[in-house]
Amino acid sequence: MKKTSVEGMNDYLPEQAELRDFLLGKITEVYRRAGFCKIITPAVESGENLANSDGGDNLRLIYKILKRGDKLAKALSAENITEDTLSDLGLRYDLTLPLARYYACHKEKLPNPFKVIQTGSVYRAERPQKGRLREFTQCDIDILGSESGDCEVELIAVTADALHAVGLTDFTVHVNDRRLLNDTLSWLGLDSGVRGGVCVILDKLDKIGADGVAAELLEKGYVGDADTAAKVVRTFAELDFDGFAKISPDAAGSLEKIISDCENLGVSVKFDPTLVRGQGYYTGTIFEIYSGEFGGTIAGGGRYDGLVGKFTGGKETAVNAVPAVGFSIGFERIFMLLSGKGTSANNAAILYEAGHAADAILYRREISEKYDGIVIAEKKKKLSKQLSQLAQCGVTTAITLEDKKIIPIKE
Amino acid sequence: MKKTSVEGMNDYLPEQAELRDFLLGKITEVYRRAGFCKIITPAVESGENLANSDGGDNLRLIYKILKRGDKLAKALSAENITEDTLSDLGLRYDLTLPLARYYACHKEKLPNPFKVIQTGSVYRAERPQKGRLREFTQCDIDILGSESGDCEVELIAVTADALHAVGLTDFTVHVNDRRLLNDTLSWLGLDSGVRGGVCVILDKLDKIGADGVAAELLEKGYVGDADTAAKVVRTFAELDFDGFAKISPDAAGSLEKIISDCENLGVSVKFDPTLVRGQGYYTGTIFEIYSGEFGGTIAGGGRYDGLVGKFTGGKETAVNAVPAVGFSIGFERIFMLLSGKGTSANNAAILYEAGHAADAILYRREISEKYDGIVIAEKKKKLSKQLSQLAQCGVTTAITLEDKKIIPIKE
Repeated sequence: MKKTSVEGMNDYLPEQAELRDFLLGKITEVYRRAGFCKIITPAVESGENLANSDGGDNLRLIYKILKRGDKLAKALSAENITEDTLSDLGLRYDLTLPLARYYACHKEKLPNPFKVIQTGSVYRAERPQKGRLREFTQCDIDILGSESGDCEVELIAVTADALHAVGLTDFTVHVNDRRLLNDTLSWLGLDSGVRGGVCVILDKLDKIGADGVAAELLEKGYVGDADTAAKVVRTFAELDFDGFAKISPDAAGSLEKIISDCENLGVSVKFDPTLVRGQGYYTGTIFEIYSGEFGGTIAGGGRYDGLVGKFTGGKETAVNAVPAVGFSIGFERIFMLLSGKGTSANNAAILYEAGHAADAILYRREISEKYDGIVIAEKKKKLSKQLSQLAQCGVTTAITLEDKKIIPIKE
Repeated sequence: MKKTSVEGMNDYLPEQAELRDFLLGKITEVYRRAGFCKIITPAVESGENLANSDGGDNLRLIYKILKRGDKLAKALSAENITEDTLSDLGLRYDLTLPLARYYACHKEKLPNPFKVIQTGSVYRAERPQKGRLREFTQCDIDILGSESGDCEVELIAVTADALHAVGLTDFTVHVNDRRLLNDTLSWLGLDSGVRGGVCVILDKLDKIGADGVAAELLEKGYVGDADTAAKVVRTFAELDFDGFAKISPDAAGSLEKIISDCENLGVSVKFDPTLVRGQGYYTGTIFEIYSGEFGGTIAGGGRYDGLVGKFTGGKETAVNAVPAVGFSIGFERIFMLLSGKGTSANNAAILYEAGHAADAILYRREISEKYDGIVIAEKKKKLSKQLSQLAQCGVTTAITLEDKKIIPIKE
């Protein structure tokens, strides 16, 4: 038998599990207090839904589940055996696809707009590398059923509150709009067919610089000559908000209102024309939160007005289109950032002589209000070793049952 | 695309999700306050561990995950393609196997004995039928590393506390011991090879009665004649505790101490010689909690001293044997029993005129201490419809932002 957990999926030690629960609890509490409702969806989705979703690269990373019983026997005895004939289910790679399916299925029973919390494990068969997990926790809020920019404002404000609640303050919110990106590239004369690819390269401006971006645009054949490449880069690097507003007035108007509303709420938001976001399904506002302490993005999201319509039958029309916008906290990054900080719980241990467990439990009931947690433990001969083991799981005070002696434990 | 969730796996509506979180939170809080530590393990285990575990019938219900990339290509191009060559991972069917693996892997970093909480989803490819889920939540506490009956006493007392914490009081705890069952069947002259099968039939005494059990014992060929069958049934139906104590003194002594300690803690525990429990891995005490309100078992567990040793290398010896005992609350049964009872949260809605979302959020901050949750919502023309929608997600009071008018909502 194998002792270690499956590669890329973690066991969490008690201290780590406590911190994860603490963080998820704090974040969820902020969301709930802001009137968002939690829902729960299965970790398993139909293979058909997963395959037809807008997951981009994630579609290649799906864990597929083998058919069972007669269906499997039939698939194995067929002439042509492939991945697709063998599998009917898969593990979800994010929480957005299950949400879209859920809303399409249950929307008659849900308020409109629907403000929703989802937290849970998702699965991606990534190549193993440091810091890249194959099972990880996502933590999302979404608002479905409203086109108003009020949704973006609330998602940004509530997400900032959640980050503050877990003790993070050194962060900035960046916003952009997919329509603004699209209008600008169109104004620069770029074909709709190449605009997606151009965006992916623009996203790297802060990493590879203006010359790097220009070179890659040429190399990939997205622009015909060096002058155009330079013009594209210059536009995104130098044009100010008013310049973009002339090219894409609708998106700029919407961004302006979002930014000023957020300022009124004390959340500083920065317009960032090179912010792109990877997912294929975004249609409007997009946003990210950058943490100085982490040195990277710790939350991201945007508007995806087309996704839910995919479930409401056939081609999307004005009738079945469901406007939607979401913000996802990078839970694993927050966990990494705050690891080792502890949760300052006040825990005690009652040490009893053999045969006195029931008495120890009775005494625990007596003093239960004084501590966050109280473990009972049979007193061992090697007391100092026992105390240091107890300290490892967060116990700060030991009490002997016999004489009620209090022994503070130093870690 | 399919709107419904995968068969046998549930979507939960907001009210249901809130109740599930509330129940799991309450139960976990009782466990934590009793000094048990939460751990987290992946939902995915290696196929090898799953296949070699003592899961009994559950082994036929494992969701197997298809290999990926080169490994899959190799398996598909082989001459002989089977379920086993195609799959390397699977979804866990309980939390006990992952715990045994976890303890074997991390025990140097854990206290001894280790008192542990595990909650999470498990997966079984059951035939679809009412009330039988393919994804469901388990909620376990275990104590690893101690042979003392103190562990049984604490598990029973803490589990009873957890049930009280969620408002359940009408229940009784039944205990038995696998050693007592084994000794008694041996004393009746039954071969060790058939004793397991006999236990499964004895378990049905309250359902099919004495005659039913005797008939089935004969029919399966576990006993040679009607007289022996009748004697087996009579023994288990009529012998009292003292009678069993003469046949199996060690087990009876241990049960006696557990029962009297529990009585001292105010938990009434009943010796039940026909209690068997299904799992193959139990080695000593076994227990169940029967709920009158539910009309069935709502928690069960027992001692399984052999399981962890399987991971510590080769044949189990005194050196690598790890005594262990656990108690699992049937979370889905508790959830079913308490569904519709609500959680009595005090939620409000701030209704704002279009364009005033940020003002509504500012006002929420002002009054946030007065309510458990406050949702902001743009005021709609059809106010009564909007109020009844808000009531559905637990809102009891609406407040108009403009004039701060308070509108109580009746459900």
